[in-house]
Amino acid sequence: MSKDYKQEQISAMEEVRRQAMAVPAQNRREFLRKGITYSAAALAGATGAAHAKNEDMLPPWTKRLGRGVVEVPYGLPSPHAKHTIRRTVDWLTADHIASISFTPLQDLKGIITPNGLVFERYHGGIPEVDPAQHHLMIHGLVDNPLMLSMDDLMRYPSESHIKFLECPANGGMEWRGAQMEALQFTHGMISCCEWTGVPLKVLLEEAGIRPEGKWILAEGADAAGMTRSIPLEKAMDDALIVYAQNGELLRPEQGFPVRLLCPGWEGNTSVKWLRRLKIGDQPWHHREETSKYTDLLADGTARRFTWVMESNSVITSPCPEKPWKFGPGKYEIEGLAWSGNGTIKGVDVSIDGGVTWREAKLKGLVLDKALTRFSLEFEWDGSPLLLQSRSHDNTGYVQPTLGQLRDARGVNSIYHKNSIHTWAVAENGGVKNVQID
Amino acid sequence: MSKDYKQEQISAMEEVRRQAMAVPAQNRREFLRKGITYSAAALAGATGAAHAKNEDMLPPWTKRLGRGVVEVPYGLPSPHAKHTIRRTVDWLTADHIASISFTPLQDLKGIITPNGLVFERYHGGIPEVDPAQHHLMIHGLVDNPLMLSMDDLMRYPSESHIKFLECPANGGMEWRGAQMEALQFTHGMISCCEWTGVPLKVLLEEAGIRPEGKWILAEGADAAGMTRSIPLEKAMDDALIVYAQNGELLRPEQGFPVRLLCPGWEGNTSVKWLRRLKIGDQPWHHREETSKYTDLLADGTARRFTWVMESNSVITSPCPEKPWKFGPGKYEIEGLAWSGNGTIKGVDVSIDGGVTWREAKLKGLVLDKALTRFSLEFEWDGSPLLLQSRSHDNTGYVQPTLGQLRDARGVNSIYHKNSIHTWAVAENGGVKNVQID
Repeated sequence: MSKDYKQEQISAMEEVRRQAMAVPAQNRREFLRKGITYSAAALAGATGAAHAKNEDMLPPWTKRLGRGVVEVPYGLPSPHAKHTIRRTVDWLTADHIASISFTPLQDLKGIITPNGLVFERYHGGIPEVDPAQHHLMIHGLVDNPLMLSMDDLMRYPSESHIKFLECPANGGMEWRGAQMEALQFTHGMISCCEWTGVPLKVLLEEAGIRPEGKWILAEGADAAGMTRSIPLEKAMDDALIVYAQNGELLRPEQGFPVRLLCPGWEGNTSVKWLRRLKIGDQPWHHREETSKYTDLLADGTARRFTWVMESNSVITSPCPEKPWKFGPGKYEIEGLAWSGNGTIKGVDVSIDGGVTWREAKLKGLVLDKALTRFSLEFEWDGSPLLLQSRSHDNTGYVQPTLGQLRDARGVNSIYHKNSIHTWAVAENGGVKNVQID
Repeated sequence: MSKDYKQEQISAMEEVRRQAMAVPAQNRREFLRKGITYSAAALAGATGAAHAKNEDMLPPWTKRLGRGVVEVPYGLPSPHAKHTIRRTVDWLTADHIASISFTPLQDLKGIITPNGLVFERYHGGIPEVDPAQHHLMIHGLVDNPLMLSMDDLMRYPSESHIKFLECPANGGMEWRGAQMEALQFTHGMISCCEWTGVPLKVLLEEAGIRPEGKWILAEGADAAGMTRSIPLEKAMDDALIVYAQNGELLRPEQGFPVRLLCPGWEGNTSVKWLRRLKIGDQPWHHREETSKYTDLLADGTARRFTWVMESNSVITSPCPEKPWKFGPGKYEIEGLAWSGNGTIKGVDVSIDGGVTWREAKLKGLVLDKALTRFSLEFEWDGSPLLLQSRSHDNTGYVQPTLGQLRDARGVNSIYHKNSIHTWAVAENGGVKNVQID
């Protein structure tokens, strides 16, 4: 480092200190407009102490050369981001081979989930599929059965769409009441990526569906042999045969080398490691659409084929993992909203447990069946709050209260709990998960 | 695996084989409509051979349990994607500490670049900055100098925007003629992410720019002490103080914990590891805007402050790394276009080196200062081609030919070579980088 450069650095620090100290103390606490408290201690520490010992003014990372290019050819997060990982809970499933991990929504910004943090759900572990040997069969009630290699599939014109993917069990541990003390676990079974692949419609038209063909059995090549019955209507609408996510090839846990994507539908229908699509004239009533992924009602009957993830929302900041640690002042209340039926039209936020509501702003891209971020600038006076968000979508659907949902479905369900969620903010800024009907 | 399940798998395979074999051989070669050749060999291999030995019909990954959840808490690509990495060339810079790595555009889909593949450029290595000790200073011609900790910065309302980031040297090795035999090296100094941060305008208004303040010196905390002079107009327009990319915290090589982002401008102005913004009344004329990042013209004078990355485009499929290996037939010609001045309005594709043009389709999202993907379905008869793409943006700017660019700027420049690029497709489907003026 040249002497001139070093001197300029030192001069800059001195200048900041001089200017800062010239500001009346009262103003100094108001540097950050809108009530954000200025960290006077940081200023003193960074300039005053350093001023006293110029040699140590520059941080160590400015005084030494860093790591070179492609020492990490596929880049990794900063060690300081090591808390931003998928997590699971031991008691939810019998073992890790048929289990779920949760996306750390509390740490994320924007609407894209980076591939390394997309939640996982599988029933027989992650298979190590060899793409050179893998084929996708399309057969059954078709004129031209197909068997496509990955090379075949990748030659078709592709499309890319940003869509959320959500497990219908998201929030499902709380039908009977609040129990998860972290946003990652109350809502982390959802992610949102840019998916690339071939419209299923194109392949089905090539195979030539016979007039009696109305349903499709999608089957995975994993040890669970995951199968779901998909109505032809969805397949011909926006279903995609996906081989890439956020630009690169699918991750192993997301179905490498190829998966189905049924946008807006419960994640389980987006069958991973897809090996077979069989066209039939009726649904197959397999395990994952009878014993599982149905909604047991209070009268003992069950709702079936409840595919759509209806509109939902949650406040991501503050949350139990991200309390308001700076005391009273200005904060941005932020959150995510989504609808499997279309686009988010608006989100309301309540600070009093749903008595009164104010309109949040939708930030950034507002896309069909994608996570949508909302924001409300808020001046907190330090009193306890009951924070809620309520989404509505372009079909006119309004996110229900837990009471409304229970009235309709009882408390025996596991899936499709999309009711308004409540965070209790305490006077110390701590956030707890509480239940309000 | 249950016996029933296994039997169903075997039956499915037999059914596909029976149906496929029932189709006349001529049709079988046309299963894939639009001229894509059906891989009859794969069909025979996958069904015929397996049929002969039912025990081995199921692939090994269907017959054993896979890996469980959160064994990899931060997920990684498939081992089969190990070729999809950033790469560098040894001869371009003196060492790896002040060098560049290239994004593998040939392997990517959609418009989002996953964080692990975003190209790198730095001048003193990647500093290991401690976010708890790092501060951003805003000082100089301001009423209220600021020193913001990362906690301070993250309390401001944030915005997220999908923007490309491009080194102005992208393509710059080829002013004198084609020499790089790979898309990754001809155009890989560009990436596109969803960036999250605080609008610089908000911070500058809080600092209170004095009337004579017209320029900002942005300085990095790396060992190179990277500095650039930014005009106040850009800072108050769409510049962002960024701390997250594609949802998660900035990667170390992208400026962790905080960087400047000047959308659409040469990447070097988006100073990483940002520690200081000094407001002044004129530019500073530092190294990176005099000796470097200026464009030497034929008459010996140099263009300076050529910040905007003007509209550019390139065909990403086919390319040298992705030849047309299946012989004559239908292919999708795909590529990327972008403009630092705004949005892409259209892209034309030529197969005869610019003599005739046809209009490509823009696929997916078309966003301001973001990568935009284009597509043209094409029936290749196997004859040699000279493939080109030509973008135009919402300002009316049309991507120039190399001849036009040389007429205006000579051949001494390093930066801002955004001319029409040519791939020569040979009869065997191989692709070479060639020069056409």
